[in-house]
Amino acid sequence: MFNKDTYISRRERLHAMMPEKGLILIPGNMEAEYNYPHNTYHFRQDSTFVYLFGLDLPNMFGVIDLDEGKDYIFGNDVDIEDIIWMGPQIPLKEKALEFGVNHTAPIKDLYSMIKEAVQKDRQIHILPTYRGRTEIMLGELLEVHPQKLTPFISTSLRDCMIKLREKKDALEIEEIERACAIGYEMHTTAMQLAQPGVSEQYIAGVIEGIALSKGKGISFATILSQHGETLHNHDHSGILTTGKLMLVDAGAEANSYYASDNTRTIPVGGKFTSKQKDIYNIVLAANEKANSMFAPGITNLDCHLAAAKVIAEGLKSVGIMKGNIDDAVANGAHAMFFPHGLGHMMGLDVHDMEGYGQVYVGYDDKIRPVDQFGTENLRLGKKLEEGFVITNEPGVYFIPALIEKWKKEGINHDFINFDILEKEYLDFGGIRLEDDLLITKTGADILGERIPITVEEVEAEVAKGA
Amino acid sequence: MFNKDTYISRRERLHAMMPEKGLILIPGNMEAEYNYPHNTYHFRQDSTFVYLFGLDLPNMFGVIDLDEGKDYIFGNDVDIEDIIWMGPQIPLKEKALEFGVNHTAPIKDLYSMIKEAVQKDRQIHILPTYRGRTEIMLGELLEVHPQKLTPFISTSLRDCMIKLREKKDALEIEEIERACAIGYEMHTTAMQLAQPGVSEQYIAGVIEGIALSKGKGISFATILSQHGETLHNHDHSGILTTGKLMLVDAGAEANSYYASDNTRTIPVGGKFTSKQKDIYNIVLAANEKANSMFAPGITNLDCHLAAAKVIAEGLKSVGIMKGNIDDAVANGAHAMFFPHGLGHMMGLDVHDMEGYGQVYVGYDDKIRPVDQFGTENLRLGKKLEEGFVITNEPGVYFIPALIEKWKKEGINHDFINFDILEKEYLDFGGIRLEDDLLITKTGADILGERIPITVEEVEAEVAKGA
Repeated sequence: MFNKDTYISRRERLHAMMPEKGLILIPGNMEAEYNYPHNTYHFRQDSTFVYLFGLDLPNMFGVIDLDEGKDYIFGNDVDIEDIIWMGPQIPLKEKALEFGVNHTAPIKDLYSMIKEAVQKDRQIHILPTYRGRTEIMLGELLEVHPQKLTPFISTSLRDCMIKLREKKDALEIEEIERACAIGYEMHTTAMQLAQPGVSEQYIAGVIEGIALSKGKGISFATILSQHGETLHNHDHSGILTTGKLMLVDAGAEANSYYASDNTRTIPVGGKFTSKQKDIYNIVLAANEKANSMFAPGITNLDCHLAAAKVIAEGLKSVGIMKGNIDDAVANGAHAMFFPHGLGHMMGLDVHDMEGYGQVYVGYDDKIRPVDQFGTENLRLGKKLEEGFVITNEPGVYFIPALIEKWKKEGINHDFINFDILEKEYLDFGGIRLEDDLLITKTGADILGERIPITVEEVEAEVAKGA
Repeated sequence: MFNKDTYISRRERLHAMMPEKGLILIPGNMEAEYNYPHNTYHFRQDSTFVYLFGLDLPNMFGVIDLDEGKDYIFGNDVDIEDIIWMGPQIPLKEKALEFGVNHTAPIKDLYSMIKEAVQKDRQIHILPTYRGRTEIMLGELLEVHPQKLTPFISTSLRDCMIKLREKKDALEIEEIERACAIGYEMHTTAMQLAQPGVSEQYIAGVIEGIALSKGKGISFATILSQHGETLHNHDHSGILTTGKLMLVDAGAEANSYYASDNTRTIPVGGKFTSKQKDIYNIVLAANEKANSMFAPGITNLDCHLAAAKVIAEGLKSVGIMKGNIDDAVANGAHAMFFPHGLGHMMGLDVHDMEGYGQVYVGYDDKIRPVDQFGTENLRLGKKLEEGFVITNEPGVYFIPALIEKWKKEGINHDFINFDILEKEYLDFGGIRLEDDLLITKTGADILGERIPITVEEVEAEVAKGA
């Protein structure tokens, strides 16, 4: 488990890397209001705050003074009245010491510290924000409108945080493995429940309950649908029907907030049709192809394109695509079926550090984002390095609106057989298969026990629940 | 189920009740950010918006024009690119018709409508806000700082909304009964899992999973603890130990967002000790006393004080309190053990309409809040009326910090035996028993099947899981 040296070392490394002076402000999260001020969602600490300062409590605020080399946590202790309602409380001073922070003070002192820093024209570093309440508070602190925080967003802080967080150490991998173990139980449970007549809402609720019973809960809103072809699909109103495919994209957060993120696609009732099996095995082959390539030094863009090629070849073999496959992939024809990226970084955020700006996390000076439908959605293109944790999630989808659009607009007609698509695949749905991997010295390891993935393994798991 | 007439009638009644002119602005909720902009909590629609406009989608905005008698929903339709990711979408125009709203327009038209209204000095009515993002948007719309919205908060709108929402009709009761049925399963499951060695986190997760699998999820953050004496306790880090009492305060939201809210207190391993049984039956007697009193015309303050008296009498009978019981209650001596209120309104919010301001919901010109420790926390004091849905949740707690404080400060020494408390009850914990009730023409009905509540019923339920 992490201890105070973990956090001291993270802050020291950040301090050493920062090319600029001034104050770094890291607001912890406040409670997120649900339907009125005192009824809140489950508390979620800010990832940057928890990475640097550890403390998993609302209304905390971290400051790193780059000039004086001091780290602060600001927060209010509870008074005697609160103790009656909240039970005995450890003072902030003592809690902060557990994370190696020696300087603590009440929130009002934060206001005077920032006021003074602004008056002295010291540089202030913040990261991009994502919650309204935090923006309102930062606006107050910095005496600007909450929608005028951009000048304080620090590219150097952002770049240093990415460098720090993108490589996971052994303790972090342990935490991700914990999340993966919860994810394993979620996915095998979903398989066992994939029986005709069961509702999507029921299965989604049960597996989210597993995430809550073993960790912080889900790492992102569960996708669980017989309409796997709808990529942004959080609707769970369907009832399972034999012959349909149920796509489940779900993950957990360990109690430390480290995430898992897996996708499996399950035949309702337990038997793939032969057509489903064909497409399924194309996706699996693409997943395995990328698996075999991941290693330090290779770009994730290359892995993405290699998986795309496996998909295009497979689709040609079943008559859906045609022509020269290298040309097809160069022209992005595969993207009608695989319109998203191969994967993304994973860590304290399921799309790790996405809040800092995806392009800064996934790309660099050498590998730039590709401006082509499909590949433009690849979140991670740059060279892989030892210690990266990434997802591998190819998919094949039959999206009626997209098929219609490309057909009408004459896009990639040389590579796609629209006739067979319209005759046989409009109600197919979609398949995605996603594992989480650690880039090692020489290759990559799947994190956690691998969730059943072959046709035989998945069918056997569904059979357990029949 | 609700249909479009439900919503038309609600808006018409509001219109008819409003003593002022101008525009009523009802912002629907946006997505609530979890750990970065695109990773959000489960969507929760605003209760007022869903009550008046029905639509359960983010980024919608309702307007009622009191002068022209027109209702609007503003929101953006998705474009073709979105349809590829989100699947076929029903246009807003069509969706709004399902709720009887004939006027829809994109969000940009809302900005021009409000700009014009402000220029023409028309009256703008908003309700108190609770989310940062909504405040930032309202600030933009009204061209004020997000922290300067107070002048727009309308007491007449608030009072009309309370009048509308406080009496539940038959369809609303159906929805609350649905939530209660989920709550029943949550609580009986918790009882069956209350075995030594099981973690609090595990049970909390499993029951929250039930809420998610049958409805929208929990109606408030579950309290599940062997430290029932800590009233604001969302810590689930304990492991169950034989001989301890596990207090579970939990509820569900139906898919319509209507809530349930129940509390039970369970002996870990399935057998109450004789001391626990004594205190338990005092709380149960207080619950039953209030049950027997609830009816139109009686004030909830009187029911609260009657329950307090049953508690004081019971505690006297076991030697914890002493002296004249009427005097003890008048002096608030019971509040050391029962420091909260008997209950609150329940509906679309678990503390119904608390966001409007609790004192306006629970009190009126005749019944004013009582300024005494304990009773000051009663959320609902006013006269009960047919159609109110309320909770009945007396409790007895042994709070070491409070016992110490009152002992030291000489508070209510005439009515409390501190010696016996310190010798025998400091590690007792706390007991609360909570039902949901509908005030009927002549009395009150418990909503949903009553969750096992007698000593015998609870012990039998725990035994099922042993």
